[in-house]
Amino acid sequence: MTAPASLLASFESIVGAGNVLTDDSAREKYASDGTRYHHRPDVIICPDGVDQVSAIVRICARERLPVVPRGAGTGYSGGAVPVRGGVVLSLERMNRILEIDESNLVAIVEPNVVTGDLQDAVERVGLFYPPDPASLRQSVIGGNVAEGAGGPRAFKYGTTRDYVLGLQAVLPTGEVVLTGGKVVKNVAGYDLTQLLVGSEGTLAIITRVILRLIPLPSARTTLRATFASVADAASAVDRIVAERVVPAALELIDADSLDAISRHLGGQPLAPAGTAALVLIEVDGTPEAAAEDALRVERACRAVGATELLRAGSAAERDELWRVRRELSPALRTLGRLKFNNDIVVPKGRIPQLFALIERLREDYGVRIACFGHAGDGNIHVNVMVGESEEDRRRAGDTVRVLFEGVLALEGSITGEHGVGLSKAPYLSMQLGPDVIALMQRVKQAFDPDGILNPGKIFP
Amino acid sequence: MTAPASLLASFESIVGAGNVLTDDSAREKYASDGTRYHHRPDVIICPDGVDQVSAIVRICARERLPVVPRGAGTGYSGGAVPVRGGVVLSLERMNRILEIDESNLVAIVEPNVVTGDLQDAVERVGLFYPPDPASLRQSVIGGNVAEGAGGPRAFKYGTTRDYVLGLQAVLPTGEVVLTGGKVVKNVAGYDLTQLLVGSEGTLAIITRVILRLIPLPSARTTLRATFASVADAASAVDRIVAERVVPAALELIDADSLDAISRHLGGQPLAPAGTAALVLIEVDGTPEAAAEDALRVERACRAVGATELLRAGSAAERDELWRVRRELSPALRTLGRLKFNNDIVVPKGRIPQLFALIERLREDYGVRIACFGHAGDGNIHVNVMVGESEEDRRRAGDTVRVLFEGVLALEGSITGEHGVGLSKAPYLSMQLGPDVIALMQRVKQAFDPDGILNPGKIFP
Repeated sequence: MTAPASLLASFESIVGAGNVLTDDSAREKYASDGTRYHHRPDVIICPDGVDQVSAIVRICARERLPVVPRGAGTGYSGGAVPVRGGVVLSLERMNRILEIDESNLVAIVEPNVVTGDLQDAVERVGLFYPPDPASLRQSVIGGNVAEGAGGPRAFKYGTTRDYVLGLQAVLPTGEVVLTGGKVVKNVAGYDLTQLLVGSEGTLAIITRVILRLIPLPSARTTLRATFASVADAASAVDRIVAERVVPAALELIDADSLDAISRHLGGQPLAPAGTAALVLIEVDGTPEAAAEDALRVERACRAVGATELLRAGSAAERDELWRVRRELSPALRTLGRLKFNNDIVVPKGRIPQLFALIERLREDYGVRIACFGHAGDGNIHVNVMVGESEEDRRRAGDTVRVLFEGVLALEGSITGEHGVGLSKAPYLSMQLGPDVIALMQRVKQAFDPDGILNPGKIFP
Repeated sequence: MTAPASLLASFESIVGAGNVLTDDSAREKYASDGTRYHHRPDVIICPDGVDQVSAIVRICARERLPVVPRGAGTGYSGGAVPVRGGVVLSLERMNRILEIDESNLVAIVEPNVVTGDLQDAVERVGLFYPPDPASLRQSVIGGNVAEGAGGPRAFKYGTTRDYVLGLQAVLPTGEVVLTGGKVVKNVAGYDLTQLLVGSEGTLAIITRVILRLIPLPSARTTLRATFASVADAASAVDRIVAERVVPAALELIDADSLDAISRHLGGQPLAPAGTAALVLIEVDGTPEAAAEDALRVERACRAVGATELLRAGSAAERDELWRVRRELSPALRTLGRLKFNNDIVVPKGRIPQLFALIERLREDYGVRIACFGHAGDGNIHVNVMVGESEEDRRRAGDTVRVLFEGVLALEGSITGEHGVGLSKAPYLSMQLGPDVIALMQRVKQAFDPDGILNPGKIFP
């Protein structure tokens, strides 16, 4: 459609003329997210407040116009791409931290607060918001909530889901609802809060988030261990758990990824020759607890044959150890033109089987596959790197399908952090039975009877 | 209804004659739970396996017969009481621990495994299942999941909800669905797992539970502090948090409760004269971390004027400190014939205002009110104790309503642990707006179009 002038005037009367965009450059800007999916919206609307969101949605419901809520647009599953056109509702103006309540360990924020900004703000008063998706300097809380974002600290601290106490949201029929609240225990009726977390903008538009905070650990120690095989690295993870250490981070980086980073940084070697896996470990707590845990981690890594063991002695050394992990995403571009980024997850004890599967895929399909991720959770990012030819894309597609079959045979999930969106929708029925998908669609119907909210996502 | 013989024969053909009960003593036994609500079912069926559950539910759906799933029957909100008659589906035979997967930190259990038994079993292999409702020696995992049960350790470790990774469940239309799985990160579609947690047996019948485990802390230290006012005790809680200690338990017991326990135990004083609040604190972790945290707790309590400070030096001393807490429930019976047990919760910094409100209620309504609970969560059990006269019941009812008004004004919730069931249903609309309740009812409809599953619960 091209939005009729009368409709645009209605939107402008709600948010002001400057906040209704229809020019080509804006439509192009809001046509994609962190993926390669692309579809231009007809109009972009930037509301500033829940009443404006509700008023816009009521018009869209009346006109049966698709509405796609958008945060920072950094998602990795196409969730913010308006594949049926219509309205992109960009929440970029709703970016205020409304309250940091130190006494009640709660923060209240608008959806487009950048995650890293919230972390900085609460850490200044000695509190801690642990969820740390790699995109934390770009992505926003509302998007993190909509996608159920994870990150390295999930093994110890859980994901975004575990910190959402309550929401204000606008239903696709225009009603403003409040779910949950400022309390950490609340069983009054169904937990709509948790249902909205990870619903990928298909059930409601999140306009306010109440987040649980915890005290900031006073000490943090980072270690790095290298191993001659992924199996040894996985044994180290098991051994660390057996030592009753719960690290804040347990990041595994494989040889292909290390190779890419090394080339990206100009060729200097990053680890001893023959390293098949590098593991970054961070422990935190009181100074005494962090020191004790660091000793246990070192003992565990040595016991399974770590080839090298480093411990950061200063903040600068800590940054240096983490540098490898931070350079991963740009570095991977050196391995191939196209990256098929899969955030699969397996029960953590099955990481060796997962890597054996990946080795077979490399051989069978002749593709580069760089892997890194959150070993404590079994959540490994499997990046299939190919060129742009038709043949390369086909091979990548085949590789991904066989990868997913293998992951599901290991009792894993095809997506641990990014959501289904567009990228995983063709594969959802590999993981979920038809009765479960039908039930999810009835839940969608209960929220969105006209199907206007973020249509074309999740379901095959 | 009285179940026709043909229907009973159908049920018997599924579960065997001995597992279909219609005699008066059985109907009486399954007519109530941990509350005073009472209604006899027409028939009790004890299936052993998901296929049997599914087959029974299909018959009930065809016959439009109410089905009420039942675990241990220890609930505090009437959730298992079959107020519309029909079938009580008792899951008592499905009580096996199917798997404790040490490598993947996962347990798989049938619904009627006693919570304390699971804890014992996983602790024997060095793992930990933290949720610890007071009923843990009687209540079962399936019931804990259905009610979203909490407990003292929730401040540090979260509630049952935080440990449920996946479910097998039977829908009210008979389909068997699998939600979630063995992985800790999973964002494939809507989180039906978390929607079923706390759904009070109204959306599906839980037949299998996949639970997350964590490493067992190797050390645990228990402390007891007494205070001359509840405000001082609340300050101690704040101070402990400011010291960056996250205790495993932070239990507050007020003077009326202490008085009851003292009388129950034969009159010996339990705390220094003038004690208005006793706080039990437990810290855990590595031996070093627990020792360090214990010092910080002591410093925090002293700083706000604790009148006495004890630390358990042995397991026997630890048991002695906890004895006061354990004797609470039986002791409260000495205060009045009827106990109206309210599991309200407020943002934790507002505990002093909550206790000021309770003091006003004591004066205005002339009722005994004994309070204890989880100070770290703001989750306080407010027990209104009265006699059995009509006038006493009326006063208790008035007290409870004004209590709930006050709790909601403090941005709290009318139920933090027990669920809505029958006991809170008349009050639900005080907390939730009509749009939210209507949305919950549409979700109920999406699961249970004929309204046969646990009818008459939650909604006013």
